Amino acid sequence: MAVPQTEVTTVNASPYPVNGERLWQTLHSLAEIGATAAGGVARVALTDEDRAGRDQFVTWVRELGCTVHIDQMGNLFARREGSDPGRAPVVIGSHLDSQPTGGKYDGAYGVMVGLEVLRVLHDNDLITAAPVEVVSWTNEEGARFPPAMIGSGVYAGAFSLDDGLAAPGVDGTTLGGELARIGYAGTEPCGEPTSVEPCGEPDGAGRRPIGHYIEPHIEQGPILEAAGVTLGAVTGVQGIRWYDVSIEGQSAHAGSTPMEHRADAMVAAARLVCEADEIAARRAPEGRATVGTLSVGTGSRNTVAGSVSLTVDLRHPDAAELEAMHDELLAFADGPAFGPQHSAASSGVRQHSAASSGDRQHSGRSLPRPQIAPIWYSPPIVFDATVVDAVRQGAVAAGFEPVDITSGAGHDACYVSMVAPTGMLFIPCADGLSHNEAESILPSHATAGAQATLNAVLALAR
Amino acid sequence: MAVPQTEVTTVNASPYPVNGERLWQTLHSLAEIGATAAGGVARVALTDEDRAGRDQFVTWVRELGCTVHIDQMGNLFARREGSDPGRAPVVIGSHLDSQPTGGKYDGAYGVMVGLEVLRVLHDNDLITAAPVEVVSWTNEEGARFPPAMIGSGVYAGAFSLDDGLAAPGVDGTTLGGELARIGYAGTEPCGEPTSVEPCGEPDGAGRRPIGHYIEPHIEQGPILEAAGVTLGAVTGVQGIRWYDVSIEGQSAHAGSTPMEHRADAMVAAARLVCEADEIAARRAPEGRATVGTLSVGTGSRNTVAGSVSLTVDLRHPDAAELEAMHDELLAFADGPAFGPQHSAASSGVRQHSAASSGDRQHSGRSLPRPQIAPIWYSPPIVFDATVVDAVRQGAVAAGFEPVDITSGAGHDACYVSMVAPTGMLFIPCADGLSHNEAESILPSHATAGAQATLNAVLALAR
Repeated sequence: MAVPQTEVTTVNASPYPVNGERLWQTLHSLAEIGATAAGGVARVALTDEDRAGRDQFVTWVRELGCTVHIDQMGNLFARREGSDPGRAPVVIGSHLDSQPTGGKYDGAYGVMVGLEVLRVLHDNDLITAAPVEVVSWTNEEGARFPPAMIGSGVYAGAFSLDDGLAAPGVDGTTLGGELARIGYAGTEPCGEPTSVEPCGEPDGAGRRPIGHYIEPHIEQGPILEAAGVTLGAVTGVQGIRWYDVSIEGQSAHAGSTPMEHRADAMVAAARLVCEADEIAARRAPEGRATVGTLSVGTGSRNTVAGSVSLTVDLRHPDAAELEAMHDELLAFADGPAFGPQHSAASSGVRQHSAASSGDRQHSGRSLPRPQIAPIWYSPPIVFDATVVDAVRQGAVAAGFEPVDITSGAGHDACYVSMVAPTGMLFIPCADGLSHNEAESILPSHATAGAQATLNAVLALAR
Repeated sequence: MAVPQTEVTTVNASPYPVNGERLWQTLHSLAEIGATAAGGVARVALTDEDRAGRDQFVTWVRELGCTVHIDQMGNLFARREGSDPGRAPVVIGSHLDSQPTGGKYDGAYGVMVGLEVLRVLHDNDLITAAPVEVVSWTNEEGARFPPAMIGSGVYAGAFSLDDGLAAPGVDGTTLGGELARIGYAGTEPCGEPTSVEPCGEPDGAGRRPIGHYIEPHIEQGPILEAAGVTLGAVTGVQGIRWYDVSIEGQSAHAGSTPMEHRADAMVAAARLVCEADEIAARRAPEGRATVGTLSVGTGSRNTVAGSVSLTVDLRHPDAAELEAMHDELLAFADGPAFGPQHSAASSGVRQHSAASSGDRQHSGRSLPRPQIAPIWYSPPIVFDATVVDAVRQGAVAAGFEPVDITSGAGHDACYVSMVAPTGMLFIPCADGLSHNEAESILPSHATAGAQATLNAVLALAR
């Protein structure tokens, strides 16, 4: 992370240089489909704009002689044959759909890098041993059809095909219905319920095989930019734990209720927020904790808050560390910060009557205890060493000194990694800003990422 | 406060005992006007229910031979003449209006105690030297016509009569219009603008004179109940400072943004909440701090909060202590809890770009600084020593050992104290609960408060 970038004057030490200008023009040509007035993109999954984006992609890859394959979830594959019919393809990809007010590069960058790779192979009449495919996964954003990444999720067997197609849209449609409407309901098999066939085989039945998968993507975070580094070899994805927290205190008059008589849910919440923050901060730079929502049951400036609910999001790339963060959060909620310790069976609500009878021996104040409900756990993902190293070496061959980085966001690569050797490549984005129309990258970074990807593909498809 | 109550067996050592049963029945007869299904009262200012409550009070006092006087703000006075025409009256009172879902005793208790005093005087054919009056102030709650206590406020010259009558109702009416509608727009002068005539004279022109004012009230807090004490002699009212706080950070992805790159408005808010709480807690039992509202600009569980707004309510009965609390709150917001100290002119928003260039010497994290805007200051009020002592001695004569107590809530007595010697008497209410249909008091406490008030009135009107 601390290694400064050593950018060489001639980027393309590779014998097969990518065409950075062409890539940039293609990216921005694609961005015209669903372009917003504020300079972003609204190409929400399975809308007419998404269809237009898919159509454009299909046109471009057919110009290169590629075949086009669509599976039952609408995942879209462009295939360039290799010389060895026994090899599974090296696949590059990401997604063409966007947030409702998204940027031009989230997802699109990975697919357009794949297109540029196909173009370089085509221009040079280069036949790899393994086939090369470029994929665009359906509905990565999940903005219209929650949850996110359902196309790659069904592919990997994390969801059943039936559930994927039945996924309800926020507008009353279904994913399957809209796939058919825009003409992208394919027939190739996609995924198998994990209960029927355990996954983990790169060439698992019931889905198009993938030999190796590389997903180039903008970082969507500030790390590369802050470190002045152009390329990140993504070694894995953070584990995530989500919690719903409720704190039940007692509403009371702000003037007439002494501090020692209060069961102030806001103060209890504030102590928990500070502690969650500390739990992550002492695991810098990898630990993360976020309280993104907090609401007060009774909201009045002269009333002690009777109840507060909030959410906690904990992340760490190491499962043991994430477990320790979990344990520390729960221990804090049961600890002395909220007054005299109580048995696990108690309700968590302070008994007011006790304070005026026999409870005076406790000098410390009592606060209502947070009730912490874990609602989701996504384990950390460690990407395939071969693919990660191919990305790393591809970056070096392109003239860069890459850093290893962990992804904090979810990507299609998370699901694909369940059934195929997978890696990712990150390039910086300005201020770490993403899911935002102001999303911005540098042309030189875009080119560097494409060159590193091409180099990695050539190595893996050799 | 720590002195245990020494309740004597015979409460009414006074030669003129109040009739506790009659008081209780009268209180609950009044509570039938505007009674709610949940056992509370909805007798909102200047509604038909308020008119009915006023009418009932007028009927009861006329049965005792009292004269009825209504001023321009609808403040309602029942007068029993004394033997000395040169004396200003001793006035007992509070308010008959209620919250929309209020209780049976808030306000009503003080007026009904006044009625019971008049009845005892009447039953005993007792002529005091000074006249005795009972007042019900208009619109104490302010629920329909904000602000609260506007009837006594105009009386004391804190608001002009024009402003009082023009006060807009939440339902599109005006206070003056509704006063006329229910037939309680009186003609006696009420208040003078402070710009025309400085207030402070007990017999100020432009308002009915008050010699001494006593307001009996339920405590609306838990102190008396927790201490096992029946009567509180109120020595004054807390000062109040209100603040609006805004914290402008930077929204960021919960996964891909390391802790040291964040400008997390929620964590900054939590630190401020904890500190406000500490500022008051180290001044227990008198200091109070409340953050009753907090809202997040962007509310998403996996997004670092970009902005948070919250309110702070600080209270203390001592002006110097309240000022010190104010200073500590502002100093904290400008101090190291939010990172390296900044000049007063800086914006309070952390500069992200600085963190990646020359700012690395700071090991601590930077958080966005709270911008604290003071929006209201109500200075502490110290009640008149003569009236407070009369209340104290009245309680002792009734057989109780009263405690001195400070009011945390505002009352009509606050405004009246600007123009007349004023005191208050508190009785306990269950769990400190008020502004709530479940508001509850004990009959024995109601009686005790009435007896102490009668004793004090007899002493002051002698």
